[in-house]
Amino acid sequence: MTHWQPYLPYNALNCRYNEIGTKGKNRNRFEEQLADSLRRAFADIGGMDFRFEHGRIFIVPKAPATVFSPEALEIVRSRAKAVAGLSSVSPGFLLEPDYAMLKAVIIEHFPTLYKAFMAQNPPQEPTYATRIRRVNKAFPMTATEMECDIADIILEAHPELKLDLKNANLLIEAEMRYHHAFVSFERVEGPGGLPSGSAGRVLALLSGGIDSPVACYQMMRRGCTVDFVTFNSEPYTPPAYLTKVVGIARKLNEYQKRGKLYAVNILDAQKAIRDKCRSKHRTVLYRRFMMRVASFLAKTFGHKALVTGDNLGQVASQTLENMGVISAAVPNMILRPLLTFEKLETMQIARNIGTYDLSIEEVPDSCTVFAPNDPTTAATLENVLEDEALLDIPALLDAAIAKTDIINPNTASQHRLEFSK
Amino acid sequence: MTHWQPYLPYNALNCRYNEIGTKGKNRNRFEEQLADSLRRAFADIGGMDFRFEHGRIFIVPKAPATVFSPEALEIVRSRAKAVAGLSSVSPGFLLEPDYAMLKAVIIEHFPTLYKAFMAQNPPQEPTYATRIRRVNKAFPMTATEMECDIADIILEAHPELKLDLKNANLLIEAEMRYHHAFVSFERVEGPGGLPSGSAGRVLALLSGGIDSPVACYQMMRRGCTVDFVTFNSEPYTPPAYLTKVVGIARKLNEYQKRGKLYAVNILDAQKAIRDKCRSKHRTVLYRRFMMRVASFLAKTFGHKALVTGDNLGQVASQTLENMGVISAAVPNMILRPLLTFEKLETMQIARNIGTYDLSIEEVPDSCTVFAPNDPTTAATLENVLEDEALLDIPALLDAAIAKTDIINPNTASQHRLEFSK
Repeated sequence: MTHWQPYLPYNALNCRYNEIGTKGKNRNRFEEQLADSLRRAFADIGGMDFRFEHGRIFIVPKAPATVFSPEALEIVRSRAKAVAGLSSVSPGFLLEPDYAMLKAVIIEHFPTLYKAFMAQNPPQEPTYATRIRRVNKAFPMTATEMECDIADIILEAHPELKLDLKNANLLIEAEMRYHHAFVSFERVEGPGGLPSGSAGRVLALLSGGIDSPVACYQMMRRGCTVDFVTFNSEPYTPPAYLTKVVGIARKLNEYQKRGKLYAVNILDAQKAIRDKCRSKHRTVLYRRFMMRVASFLAKTFGHKALVTGDNLGQVASQTLENMGVISAAVPNMILRPLLTFEKLETMQIARNIGTYDLSIEEVPDSCTVFAPNDPTTAATLENVLEDEALLDIPALLDAAIAKTDIINPNTASQHRLEFSK
Repeated sequence: MTHWQPYLPYNALNCRYNEIGTKGKNRNRFEEQLADSLRRAFADIGGMDFRFEHGRIFIVPKAPATVFSPEALEIVRSRAKAVAGLSSVSPGFLLEPDYAMLKAVIIEHFPTLYKAFMAQNPPQEPTYATRIRRVNKAFPMTATEMECDIADIILEAHPELKLDLKNANLLIEAEMRYHHAFVSFERVEGPGGLPSGSAGRVLALLSGGIDSPVACYQMMRRGCTVDFVTFNSEPYTPPAYLTKVVGIARKLNEYQKRGKLYAVNILDAQKAIRDKCRSKHRTVLYRRFMMRVASFLAKTFGHKALVTGDNLGQVASQTLENMGVISAAVPNMILRPLLTFEKLETMQIARNIGTYDLSIEEVPDSCTVFAPNDPTTAATLENVLEDEALLDIPALLDAAIAKTDIINPNTASQHRLEFSK
């Protein structure tokens, strides 16, 4: 609906959210966090004032401005989908709670809307829907009475219009609230979920694959701030691999307050595993080692959980048995948002958030280094511990942590991790 | 599409699956497991023979029968959605790989299909699509050539038909394979995922709420066999609570090989927690105790993971902090398939699988027994351990396990759990 919308001198943005409205005493905190996200996503608009009403956040231009510019509306339309917790936003007219005024605004602006719609190429059949919500139940007209009255006016001017409640091309929405009325002709969808920062900080294992970026995004949508850890085996993996992962992290940071990326070279551990352990356990041993590094970082930096892109049964390493053995390497809570997703569903989300094209670029990663021909699908902890007994894991961990860089994905600036044991 | 489909003398069911076709050496095992599920779901059909071809399972009537009865087709249409791993099934005509024969079958049966469609009330506009797949690339006509040829014939007889590739009312599908051709007019959707039994046995914490049954179903869809554990506080919770949970487990068992239900009375532990611990920790302490019972059962009966309906941030007890403290009570891998779901999404799945109406029946559960007014949203392990130091947890666990019944949800027969330590 957004592409053909004409410019109208809107004086407010009506920001809607779902679940967080039901949080009782937490509501204020959630609303503030959502407002923070909106401020960040819409920062380029410039001056904005926020007004909180029950279940809504209204954004209005800072005085002396009274309306939003065309550029401001484009910012809203392009960035709304990055605001976790936002279910939708409508640019529109915030008015006195007066039905005559509400009606006048519709009568004044609907013709512009209609004309812009009809000017589209290719042409589409003009269908409409009128949706009015009466928040103030004391208001003398019911929502249905107002809807019928408005529909009558619209149809008198345009008898060719057809009603289509589900997929209307022309949407006329209004809310009759206690202190305001609001009229809009457009809904820009947000991602839903919970606002960024409402759920705490987690550390996600990020690779160059399709799944792990989607796992990160799912956590962000539920309010988590996500930092990233990625593993490389330079010089066995090319520098392009890290560049690729930095690009994915930068894309993901569009959906949250900036997350950091920890890049860890685990080649020493991989060589030791190759030389000393059974080849069929290699993949599981790599993963257990990565978990240990992530666990160390989480402890050092206070992440409340580790996040992986694990998907049950998708590849041989993701059997219940192997996932169990890998998880057992660390005491951390491990969250697997994609656990039961279908691959097509994951790919669709990856496309929606813009990580898919970054992920499908083919660059060798750490998992392929010394990859065995005979990976096990049913590791047992007992067997894996036998193999690990042949390794000096604390020393290998120290070596990996000493080769860890902290990267700001947005600037690509990086420095070596400094830590004191 | 299914409701108006006329009876046609179909001689085969073409069962399609997605991901499992890509599993390399595991494919045979997955196909066998899917075939087992199909045999179970379609058992009432009676005699069936299975033929495995690349990416397909064809089911044909056992000789001397040559076609499926109307009753058999109704069984297929009503039960397909319960077969984890099945993406869709089409009743249809399995033929020699001969294009003339394929065409003859369409010409013979399309009129019946068309007539049945047009007899519907309310009437809908007749739209069609022709989709032909050429598996045998050596076959002289391309798929497009065959599609155009068939469409020409259809349109000659019915010039009023409109092409609609996305939402055709009348679907003409065919496959030109190496050893067979197959023609069908209907796709019955399955749930997708992986076949039951392919991923191992897990133990799910099942309550009377909306979420935990959906979590169970998600695990089943990915091939897990799910047993259930539920907690009650009789006589503080009514017997109706257990009856409700048994009904939910029975419904869930429609989607898998029979899972067992363990019903545990935890009232002793709840009383001790009420009497000795800080009230704000009560919910977290209950949940940690439930996890310990589940962990004991999983160890005793060999479940590879515990499953919960946890959903990040949905209720106060599901903060990252509380989830972390609850998880830390047991060493088991804990799987949370609904972790990042939206509530509406979970409710929709609950409706689709038939647990929603069972769940919304209001019966008091164990969580409400002595429920505190001031539950914490940010428990720390340190504080919770202080409280638990005041309890004799091993004795309380013994008491709860001694009050555990094993129930067969399908027959509601039950017996006391017997175990030797």
